[in-house]
Amino acid sequence: MSDTRKIEIPQILDGMVRPAARLITLVEDNDPRAKPILQELYLKGGKSLVIGITGPPGAGKSTLSDQLIAHYRAQDKRVCIIAVDPTSPFTGGAILGDRIRMGRHNTDPKVFIRSMATRGHLGGLARATGDALCVMDAMGWDVVIIETVGVGQGEVNIVQCADVVVLLQTPGGGDHIQAAKAGILEIGDIFVVNKAKRDGADRTVKEIEEMLDFKTHPGEANAWRPPVLKTEALTGEGTEELAAQIEARMAFLQEHPDEAGRLGRERARITLAEVMKELAVERLGDGVRGGRELDELLDAIAARRVDPYSAAEKILDA
Amino acid sequence: MSDTRKIEIPQILDGMVRPAARLITLVEDNDPRAKPILQELYLKGGKSLVIGITGPPGAGKSTLSDQLIAHYRAQDKRVCIIAVDPTSPFTGGAILGDRIRMGRHNTDPKVFIRSMATRGHLGGLARATGDALCVMDAMGWDVVIIETVGVGQGEVNIVQCADVVVLLQTPGGGDHIQAAKAGILEIGDIFVVNKAKRDGADRTVKEIEEMLDFKTHPGEANAWRPPVLKTEALTGEGTEELAAQIEARMAFLQEHPDEAGRLGRERARITLAEVMKELAVERLGDGVRGGRELDELLDAIAARRVDPYSAAEKILDA
Repeated sequence: MSDTRKIEIPQILDGMVRPAARLITLVEDNDPRAKPILQELYLKGGKSLVIGITGPPGAGKSTLSDQLIAHYRAQDKRVCIIAVDPTSPFTGGAILGDRIRMGRHNTDPKVFIRSMATRGHLGGLARATGDALCVMDAMGWDVVIIETVGVGQGEVNIVQCADVVVLLQTPGGGDHIQAAKAGILEIGDIFVVNKAKRDGADRTVKEIEEMLDFKTHPGEANAWRPPVLKTEALTGEGTEELAAQIEARMAFLQEHPDEAGRLGRERARITLAEVMKELAVERLGDGVRGGRELDELLDAIAARRVDPYSAAEKILDA
Repeated sequence: MSDTRKIEIPQILDGMVRPAARLITLVEDNDPRAKPILQELYLKGGKSLVIGITGPPGAGKSTLSDQLIAHYRAQDKRVCIIAVDPTSPFTGGAILGDRIRMGRHNTDPKVFIRSMATRGHLGGLARATGDALCVMDAMGWDVVIIETVGVGQGEVNIVQCADVVVLLQTPGGGDHIQAAKAGILEIGDIFVVNKAKRDGADRTVKEIEEMLDFKTHPGEANAWRPPVLKTEALTGEGTEELAAQIEARMAFLQEHPDEAGRLGRERARITLAEVMKELAVERLGDGVRGGRELDELLDAIAARRVDPYSAAEKILDA
């Protein structure tokens, strides 16, 4: 059930965690009261450093972001984590990991961890995560880390909304040729081979470097060559170098306003597309409340008297 | 690049594989020429038995569907597989598995296997798979098996479009309490514990049964109690029982037209929602071709002068 207390926008902008958490719950429940608040918060955001961390299950994403929390806390920065795990219906991953971490950081008011778990067929995880980012960004955290398993289209979109995308692999942990084909390499600004003491780490680094050779053209004005780092997230080795490279990437974007502008537009496009998808489905929902008309249409589609392609055009135009 | 040869609708309706494969390629490339063909094909479909198989990576989905192919081929039924693996950017799973299976069945003209791999940020995997199902269904295959990793919202939606949903688990392979919470249990018509000779198989069966006790009410008129089966997909043990239960489920739906109607409407709603989402994004794309207007809007969103929620409403209304 949604919390019906009034959500105070000034409190959220002041960085207060409780009203922000209540708002994210409204967002997850797809409560229409969230939208006017999000509209206002969006315009105040854009000041946090947003880091996206993605990689296969078990690569060590949450351990690595834990190390980043420690790094940024040592600089007295306020850090927020948004953890997304679409595999949780099967593995319980996000929620379990979240609770363990909550226990470690819950005495530190300058750290906030929020997990976004899929709610089965209720849907809208990507949109809800985008909205959660909008909230966190408006709260003024110095650093927001979005952590997500790199599977599923929605998840790829989510992580692309970060300022810097860290792509995590483990030694021998991926079929990199496939990764190159599928375009997932293209979203990585920094590559990390975690569990680097395992056999094959150097080979994995080499494979990634070789693939980057194909797509990076050193002569190009706006060419950012993604660094390939090795980390041992459990012990923290490599964390400082990762943080330094995140900083280097941000400096690069400052020096290349054209590239920064292009990426900003791309992020805006992804955000807008997610919002539009959700709005399209909402309009379908509005039809239900309007009476029996939609049920009759659905029956006609099920009976193959009407095709969904024509029906969708009509509903969107209505 | 898309194949530009004319796609013959009568040939597809006749079950010819090549024009159907060309059409699915158009669908994957998001080629606008596909839509009028899909509209026509949709109205001719709905005759195949559509089986959805879902479960975590490594549970044995493709091995199990291989066994089902053998089962239905022994009855001289024509069988088609649509294999969806959103994890392929990292694991290369679907494509690799697909090639291995292709080798085994490629001399049999009554078997067709098509893998739908994610194309990175090009998106639309759920929609493309829905469209592929529309094509296969119109071709008149006796059985269409949709096989997908059960992660990500899009993937859950895909499998829900099947007539019968088989939810695969391995012994000790899932945090079932989480599965129940996330609503994924609700989409399973038949539960299968594969690799049943491993330790813990009986316990996993028991855990699933206990959860089903919570949600099944024997007194209810339309109550289908999902059976929980054990299989050993590598050897084929349990396949006959699974096929028998699939048949039992279809018989149940015939005897319960209200329930069948409700599920048909739900499937239509999911299909329609996917098409509407894609259409909404297309309308965003139409803006790009229309000139600089969209770029200016995206810049305004990136600069936080405009929020994406208001912008989305305006574009959909335009």
